Amino acid sequence: MRPGDVIQTKRDGGELSRAQIDAFVRAAARTEGSGWEPYHLTALLMAIYLNGMTAAETAYLTQAMADSGTRLDLSDISGPKVDKHSTGGVGDKTSLILGPLAAACGVLVPMMSGRGLGHSGGTLDKLEAIPGFNVNLSERQLRDALAKVGLGMMGQTKDVAPADKTLYALRDVTATVESIPLITASILSKKLSEGIGGLVMDVKTGRGAFMKTRARSRELAESIVRVGTANGLRTTAMITAMDAPLGRYVGNALEVIESIETLKGNGPPDLTELSVKLAARMVELAGIADAEAKVRAALTSGAGLDVFRKCIEQQGGDPKVIDEYSRLGVPTPSMVPVKAPRDGYVTDIDAEKVGVAVRDVGGGRSRAEDKIDHSVGIVIRAKPGEQVRAGDNVLEVWFRDDTKFAAAWPTIGAAVTFGDAPPSPEPLILEEIT
Amino acid sequence: MRPGDVIQTKRDGGELSRAQIDAFVRAAARTEGSGWEPYHLTALLMAIYLNGMTAAETAYLTQAMADSGTRLDLSDISGPKVDKHSTGGVGDKTSLILGPLAAACGVLVPMMSGRGLGHSGGTLDKLEAIPGFNVNLSERQLRDALAKVGLGMMGQTKDVAPADKTLYALRDVTATVESIPLITASILSKKLSEGIGGLVMDVKTGRGAFMKTRARSRELAESIVRVGTANGLRTTAMITAMDAPLGRYVGNALEVIESIETLKGNGPPDLTELSVKLAARMVELAGIADAEAKVRAALTSGAGLDVFRKCIEQQGGDPKVIDEYSRLGVPTPSMVPVKAPRDGYVTDIDAEKVGVAVRDVGGGRSRAEDKIDHSVGIVIRAKPGEQVRAGDNVLEVWFRDDTKFAAAWPTIGAAVTFGDAPPSPEPLILEEIT
Repeated sequence: MRPGDVIQTKRDGGELSRAQIDAFVRAAARTEGSGWEPYHLTALLMAIYLNGMTAAETAYLTQAMADSGTRLDLSDISGPKVDKHSTGGVGDKTSLILGPLAAACGVLVPMMSGRGLGHSGGTLDKLEAIPGFNVNLSERQLRDALAKVGLGMMGQTKDVAPADKTLYALRDVTATVESIPLITASILSKKLSEGIGGLVMDVKTGRGAFMKTRARSRELAESIVRVGTANGLRTTAMITAMDAPLGRYVGNALEVIESIETLKGNGPPDLTELSVKLAARMVELAGIADAEAKVRAALTSGAGLDVFRKCIEQQGGDPKVIDEYSRLGVPTPSMVPVKAPRDGYVTDIDAEKVGVAVRDVGGGRSRAEDKIDHSVGIVIRAKPGEQVRAGDNVLEVWFRDDTKFAAAWPTIGAAVTFGDAPPSPEPLILEEIT
Repeated sequence: MRPGDVIQTKRDGGELSRAQIDAFVRAAARTEGSGWEPYHLTALLMAIYLNGMTAAETAYLTQAMADSGTRLDLSDISGPKVDKHSTGGVGDKTSLILGPLAAACGVLVPMMSGRGLGHSGGTLDKLEAIPGFNVNLSERQLRDALAKVGLGMMGQTKDVAPADKTLYALRDVTATVESIPLITASILSKKLSEGIGGLVMDVKTGRGAFMKTRARSRELAESIVRVGTANGLRTTAMITAMDAPLGRYVGNALEVIESIETLKGNGPPDLTELSVKLAARMVELAGIADAEAKVRAALTSGAGLDVFRKCIEQQGGDPKVIDEYSRLGVPTPSMVPVKAPRDGYVTDIDAEKVGVAVRDVGGGRSRAEDKIDHSVGIVIRAKPGEQVRAGDNVLEVWFRDDTKFAAAWPTIGAAVTFGDAPPSPEPLILEEIT
């Protein structure tokens, strides 16, 4: 099968056959002798971007991409395995909260996460703010963690969906990232490789999200639910608001602190509520009754916090951070506040600007190879809708490097809006797709 | 300027700026440090294929591609310089006839042609059937030929539009050839490099043509006229039929013979008429009055034949071929005829099948690196509309290699259709675009 013929099919708006998709995915996984070059792949990616894919094509592409690598088989471990995945946001540390909560309710959570890039953070980076925490688990270590803790939090091994790695790198530089079928296949091929039976998807929507509009977010959520289900994965999706940061802390170590506080019952309402709802969906997908009540009980009893403590210990981290935040190495020496210029209300905090600013003071990455400073970040003292007096701290920016701070400052200053009245409250969970 | 941003502009249906087109073309010409890889180029080519280009974009792309290489400056040679270009057909040897005719009327013809590929032939291959004929002229040799003969027939040097070479090679393997703006820029960037002031374009349409439909042919003709004119080239186009082969001889040496016969006044009516009309348009573009009458006079007086003889001599060929066709090395030892199975009329000869058959007996190329046998080909004894008796030769296939002949025979046999009545005659010149 010649690459040009496969490309031509999609160029002309046709449906790719399974054999054509296999050829494409084998090429992306760099199987020798495929006869494809990267320039064939990108021409096809652009044709897919512009002409789309049917549900059947997307489902088979997802399966073929998962099959391009190792797929964990956890069927010998008894118990329901469920994971959660988010499209990424600012201040979104729910994984650190709902993973322990779901595990405390009897769900096995083999969670493979990614790193932060651009304005959004990554679970692995947050976990690595905990001294000693090892996210590079082998399959054996993951099985051990599931058996002892019910939760393993790790990065993807290089054997997981290698076709996705090639395709994502090419999409990133050829303006073909924002394609619903390609995003769907990228996310789900990796989730299928985890050996789970259920997946809760958090599709963020808004200014600080990957998908900026509600319509596109819904399109993606529906595609993921449809394609996950077609591949034998019980899948449910929530569309949740990401116009303002989630919670009050943005930055890796800061987000670990807020996660622990939430598991202690002291979390901000938005973060607590979303974490509970997502965990409840996981517990439901695991086939456990009274899911939400059980999750709330795990929160108030401290059972969730206990799982997190064990998880840290199991993965080589220092469990004392749970009680001594100073072991996380924050705060850093320098803090500059954004003060309210007047009496009134915070009407808006732009999640994307906050994310970019945290990245720019060193808490995130512009390129995949950038090093992260776990200790820097932004604390939100007044969230949208909260009243302030002139001179109150609204944001506090923690940083280490003056030059980076100076570069980030204009973005930080533009992130907050003030007004005479509070904005009308918007729901955080906008929609559920099942 | 990042490649992804340029690609995104076209992906979203926007108009590329001149700076964006410059970046793309510089990259295609392999300027060091461009930051572009072939996989960027093909993603953009697919976006152009699917989202098109405005007239202004196409015009600037054409200019930038011409500027990516050496553009001949013949302004020191006084006299009008005009060329003709065809999109390629079967039995289309008009260049060998109209070049000499136009030159005999006072036009300077710096003709850069290509080689055959697939089912269509190439002028350079035909000329090389003449023993000793050198198509690899330097600029100095071309200037000399124009001064002494008024006509130089050569291949493109490697310095001509190098961006086009890269882009064409990538389009060929990524299903992005059939794009009107990309075809326009490819053809005209090379023609602009010839230092001509006028161009007559022969856009073939039909089964044996690159453009199969009249609508697409018209679209291409209009694009070429518009973009040529925008780049300061007086451009006119004819849309001509290519359902059946042009003339009676197909194959390199055979086509040289038919061209000479035509210049001697003994050519088949279709070939003679089209050559005269195209030559007349060249003479008109040169600003010479009574163009068609002058071309016909050059034909009947033998002035055109005389130019061709001088051209052969000037370029190192054996001018005695004009009077002794045996010097061309045809016929080859073996001939098998296709005979009429019944009394009646030839109603159809499929140009594409004839072209493919000639290629398959060794007269053309499947790949650019294939070697050509100049002596093989097909002679059409009865053209569509001509009466035959059962047993008459309709086609005569001249070949050297029995295995190749056997492979080509089914195609040859399917090329001719017979009937009880002649088909209604169709015009050869369908339309003119100016």
